[in-house]
Amino acid sequence: MGRLNIVERRVERFLREPPSVRNAAGVIVVATALIVVGAGVLITLVDGDEYPDLETGLWWALQTVTTVGYGDVAPSKLSGRLVGALVMLEGIAFIAIVTAVITSTFVARMTREAEAARVQNVASEREVFEKRFDELDRKLDRLAAVLDNRA
Amino acid sequence: MGRLNIVERRVERFLREPPSVRNAAGVIVVATALIVVGAGVLITLVDGDEYPDLETGLWWALQTVTTVGYGDVAPSKLSGRLVGALVMLEGIAFIAIVTAVITSTFVARMTREAEAARVQNVASEREVFEKRFDELDRKLDRLAAVLDNRA
Amino acid sequence: MGRLNIVERRVERFLREPPSVRNAAGVIVVATALIVVGAGVLITLVDGDEYPDLETGLWWALQTVTTVGYGDVAPSKLSGRLVGALVMLEGIAFIAIVTAVITSTFVARMTREAEAARVQNVASEREVFEKRFDELDRKLDRLAAVLDNRA
Amino acid sequence: MGRLNIVERRVERFLREPPSVRNAAGVIVVATALIVVGAGVLITLVDGDEYPDLETGLWWALQTVTTVGYGDVAPSKLSGRLVGALVMLEGIAFIAIVTAVITSTFVARMTREAEAARVQNVASEREVFEKRFDELDRKLDRLAAVLDNRA
Repeated sequence: MGRLNIVERRVERFLREPPSVRNAAGVIVVATALIVVGAGVLITLVDGDEYPDLETGLWWALQTVTTVGYGDVAPSKLSGRLVGALVMLEGIAFIAIVTAVITSTFVARMTREAEAARVQNVASEREVFEKRFDELDRKLDRLAAVLDNRA
Repeated sequence: MGRLNIVERRVERFLREPPSVRNAAGVIVVATALIVVGAGVLITLVDGDEYPDLETGLWWALQTVTTVGYGDVAPSKLSGRLVGALVMLEGIAFIAIVTAVITSTFVARMTREAEAARVQNVASEREVFEKRFDELDRKLDRLAAVLDNRA
Repeated sequence: MGRLNIVERRVERFLREPPSVRNAAGVIVVATALIVVGAGVLITLVDGDEYPDLETGLWWALQTVTTVGYGDVAPSKLSGRLVGALVMLEGIAFIAIVTAVITSTFVARMTREAEAARVQNVASEREVFEKRFDELDRKLDRLAAVLDNRA
Repeated sequence: MGRLNIVERRVERFLREPPSVRNAAGVIVVATALIVVGAGVLITLVDGDEYPDLETGLWWALQTVTTVGYGDVAPSKLSGRLVGALVMLEGIAFIAIVTAVITSTFVARMTREAEAARVQNVASEREVFEKRFDELDRKLDRLAAVLDNRA
């Protein structure tokens, strides 16, 4: 039973806090924040006519990364459109990874209890079989004692 | 077999209606509805020129939270854009969580029958082994009876 | 082994073609097509100024359901915006369900071979234990024969 | 134990690099890149008034496939809108498949360690039972030796 408890604990801990999925969530949120701020600053530098201040630049970067894209401000120069292309593609990665992190957390939560039930199931089978082995052992020892006694 | 039936029922019930995932679905739908209405009201208060009535405010909030973003109406003041930023980010959470809830429900549905087959598999193995143990037991008892009889 | 083959076949067939997930895919594609066509027709009826022909109506419905939302045509009347709200929300359901169907198909494909390996694993354990039981059985029968012979 | 190691290795390798999911990722990225470039070229040919150069065509194709849809440039002719419809639908497939690939990779990563724990669990059970069988075997051999000796 000791071994099973270790397995159970390990499985539960892992499913509760999978390290690489959590890392992915942190990395994408930080990367997206940096790209929005960076692109917001950059677009005011390369396309100052359309983006006169940082507020407009950040507003455009945020509506691009979330794929809302009102188009009230949009880059018309090649340099600004290249910045936009980067933000759009990062936006897809952002949405995909956020969705993936939440989905895999939900799947893990649903798997966890099923897994716990399965581990308990195997543990119960093992206990039953151990008792049967003990019983056979005991009977064989008794037979051996009878035979040895008579010899 | 009684124990296995309990496990089977527990696993099936859980996979059919995982409580926290259902809660997540309810929470995000209610939160999104509240944010759309709240943002629709708020935007008419802070940017009355662009949003003259509640209809326009709600129409903008809905096209923002769904990331459609026509841009037929868009906030031009900082206060309105801050409201917009909140709605955009909530929109990403909305889409991600709705997708995650549906996906994990599908994955659970596909896992359910595989799990049931596995539980039945373990149950069948157990039954076979129990019969083998019974047989060995019976033979040992017979040997003991023969030896005891002769003593 | 016969029983295990049945389980294996059942699990494999189910994971390869899960009926309700496939149904979901079919239902959402048909529902989305119907809503795009229906909304495209309806918008020309309720907002004929903005949407003079069916082509414009369908073009708007498609860019709304996919959440692209150029905004080159957008409803300005309440009736048209209500049609738009329906299409937007259906668009979220469309994207979420399409993503969920593809994701759960991928997860099932990855689970399938792991499951097959596990079934084979259990089958191999069973075979090994069956042989051990056979061996014990054979030895007990021999002991019984020796004792019976001597009696 | 040899057999279990093979199973363990096979499961781990498969979960680490599932061939068809990786293929799906590669195929959708290449297909999307080709469609963006193809649609960008095509739209300048069929709607030269709105799209005077390739830069504008590619810029429109990218904002369409990512569902950003600023609407700073949008096709007004039927031919251009048909190209747009194709890019929009491909965009949904792109986002759905990218999300599905990342999600199933995360789910696989979370499943991997749970699976490894389970395989080890079964291996440990097997080892315990093998020892019990060995013990019974040894005792039966001893009984047989005692009886044969006396005969």
